[in-house]
Amino acid sequence: MKAEIIAVGSELLLGQIANTNAQFLSQQLAELGIDVYYHTVVGDNPVRLAQAIEIAQKRSNLLIFTGGLGPTKDDLTKETIAKMLNKKLVIDEEAWCSICDYFAKTKRTMTANNRKQALVLEGAYVLKNEHGMAPGMALTVGEMTYMLLPGPPKEMQPMFLKYGRPFLLQTLDVQEKIESLVLRFFHIGESQLEAEIEDFIDAQTNPTIAPLAADGEVTLRITAKHRVEEEAKKMIRELEKKILTRVGDYFYGYNGDTLFSKTLEKLKEKGKTIAIAESLTGGLFAEQLTAISGASAVVKGGVICYTNEIKENVLGVPKEILQTEGAVSKRCAQLLAENVRKLCRAHIGISFTGVAGPSELEGKPVGTVWIGIATEEETKTFPLTLAGNRDMIRMRTAKYGCYYLLQALK
Amino acid sequence: MKAEIIAVGSELLLGQIANTNAQFLSQQLAELGIDVYYHTVVGDNPVRLAQAIEIAQKRSNLLIFTGGLGPTKDDLTKETIAKMLNKKLVIDEEAWCSICDYFAKTKRTMTANNRKQALVLEGAYVLKNEHGMAPGMALTVGEMTYMLLPGPPKEMQPMFLKYGRPFLLQTLDVQEKIESLVLRFFHIGESQLEAEIEDFIDAQTNPTIAPLAADGEVTLRITAKHRVEEEAKKMIRELEKKILTRVGDYFYGYNGDTLFSKTLEKLKEKGKTIAIAESLTGGLFAEQLTAISGASAVVKGGVICYTNEIKENVLGVPKEILQTEGAVSKRCAQLLAENVRKLCRAHIGISFTGVAGPSELEGKPVGTVWIGIATEEETKTFPLTLAGNRDMIRMRTAKYGCYYLLQALK
Repeated sequence: MKAEIIAVGSELLLGQIANTNAQFLSQQLAELGIDVYYHTVVGDNPVRLAQAIEIAQKRSNLLIFTGGLGPTKDDLTKETIAKMLNKKLVIDEEAWCSICDYFAKTKRTMTANNRKQALVLEGAYVLKNEHGMAPGMALTVGEMTYMLLPGPPKEMQPMFLKYGRPFLLQTLDVQEKIESLVLRFFHIGESQLEAEIEDFIDAQTNPTIAPLAADGEVTLRITAKHRVEEEAKKMIRELEKKILTRVGDYFYGYNGDTLFSKTLEKLKEKGKTIAIAESLTGGLFAEQLTAISGASAVVKGGVICYTNEIKENVLGVPKEILQTEGAVSKRCAQLLAENVRKLCRAHIGISFTGVAGPSELEGKPVGTVWIGIATEEETKTFPLTLAGNRDMIRMRTAKYGCYYLLQALK
Repeated sequence: MKAEIIAVGSELLLGQIANTNAQFLSQQLAELGIDVYYHTVVGDNPVRLAQAIEIAQKRSNLLIFTGGLGPTKDDLTKETIAKMLNKKLVIDEEAWCSICDYFAKTKRTMTANNRKQALVLEGAYVLKNEHGMAPGMALTVGEMTYMLLPGPPKEMQPMFLKYGRPFLLQTLDVQEKIESLVLRFFHIGESQLEAEIEDFIDAQTNPTIAPLAADGEVTLRITAKHRVEEEAKKMIRELEKKILTRVGDYFYGYNGDTLFSKTLEKLKEKGKTIAIAESLTGGLFAEQLTAISGASAVVKGGVICYTNEIKENVLGVPKEILQTEGAVSKRCAQLLAENVRKLCRAHIGISFTGVAGPSELEGKPVGTVWIGIATEEETKTFPLTLAGNRDMIRMRTAKYGCYYLLQALK
């Protein structure tokens, strides 16, 4: 089963919106074990749409269309497919009734072209639209299956989940279960990670391993297929174990986990509260933690000590230390962590100080960073040398804060 | 000139990420007056990639690729194109030096595959990567132009703007000058804004007006074409003037301006410093301001008063107020703004308190927000009732903070 997702709409080609429909459907199809080999976007132009369909028919046998089912003249998806397949368009009475109901209810005036929305391909299985007017449809002709879905995600997504997905499962008699698991790593580059597990990547067939680097992190997506779900899961577990034997030191979580969510989770688990002193990061670390609901159980608060004045007056870093060693120093990071911990009466204090750029500071180059972590027992400091622009340095610093905290909480 | 954007990456076909690169490039090409007829997404598979390129060559004459320039084995874009065009891949010395620098600076270990990143198509114009390692490239062969850009948006976007766009303008000998200007609005909905200027939108030909709503803001992109640059600019200025006569109250900036950058700018202009007390927003407001370089001239710092304990002990909100009126109250917002101003010895204090959700707080529904702004002369408070999820409520609160500050600084 090879699928292609064809989005129809000039607004995509003009960059007015991103093709999030293709992302949603790709995730859904991956879960069903259907391989997606191509996404195509084509404008509201019947000739180019027909050409795109001809190409797709040669390389895929499941074509899923989004968009072009609306009432206006440039909505041409079903008309173009009808012509190519030599099928008639017929009124779907149920869809027509619900369109009439909608207009009656909202007291809006119906125009002639609204009837066009109730047209479906003759012989198609109609996918009800419970969040809009245009129905979707699915039709199998020989080896090919066509599924037409509306463009607005708010209509398309529930329609696919409630009607499209079951249609695919039944029609395509999907036998294999597909399972996947994302492993998340930090403090290791993509190329180093791959080098460490090169033999697994080279040998991959089932399960497959897909590495991805983003925002200073690397993920590995392991995907396994098997007729028995439990077997697919077992295959993944076994490969995961082998991978983590090699690079487990850099592993921090699964799937939707983030360094911040894991940090919050770990703090909760250990019953520890935290206070934050942010110079370099200016609130970013606290913001990321408190973006997660339930943060108030462990995040007491903190101080944004952006200027030396605040470091001195609010967090008690002596003036002479700021003058001799500077704000970007081991000693300053240490005192900020200790004093914010005391001020906020928390179990742990964490501090961030450094040079975000674009210019150097205190004679220290851009990317020089100190992180301090203070507990009742001891204070540790961590120097970093980070590359990248201002945003990247700030975000990586915050992520390293999580990384060192997670190590300290082990 | 017909363009096609080809994204290479299995992560797109698995739905792990959306193809936002295609959206960005489509907007950019639209501005340059280059028609985009197709977007294609293909996986990290050299056979299918070659087939997609063959199809694209028949229907387009500018192919822009994103992704597949990384160091790993499944990064195959330039290798596949080199093979198809019968071109060699050669080391770009400048790119190679900057990769070596990067590793030296960050003290990370280089692996053999990193050298692969410095390879470029023989004879190509190299597009420097100032935010990552893999360089981009552009090459014209006969009627066809190929441009290869990296996949991560943080690398791709600045590379295209600084090097890719000028290359296209020069190579394609674009005759008409295309000028565009984005007007940014806040505190007005898209439909209301459109209704106010409906006659301009209906009458548009040159300049065109494209409205877009995102993140609680609305923008209008005005684009004019003329052989003389100054004439195009004049056309834009005239339309801008007419639009702002109608909806100028909601206008806050141009192009890449943000509410945060405008706030920083205005504070600088007026010579005022600011201190921030963040409960609801947990550091977001300070983080957004300090993300902008030069923030230290006006942002003194602040307190993340996430718990009532910090509101009381660090910012001196009396316990009885927290108990009777609550943390989410006019009085609390007022005291937080006043006291953070004094604590940090700033000209202005601003505070944010409210209910981000998912649950209600102190019997107050999700979306209840108070913002306080204190100056030496007076303290003002602003109540808000915001819709949306936790992230949206926090971000909109921070943006309203800018909005009210900008009004206060007028």
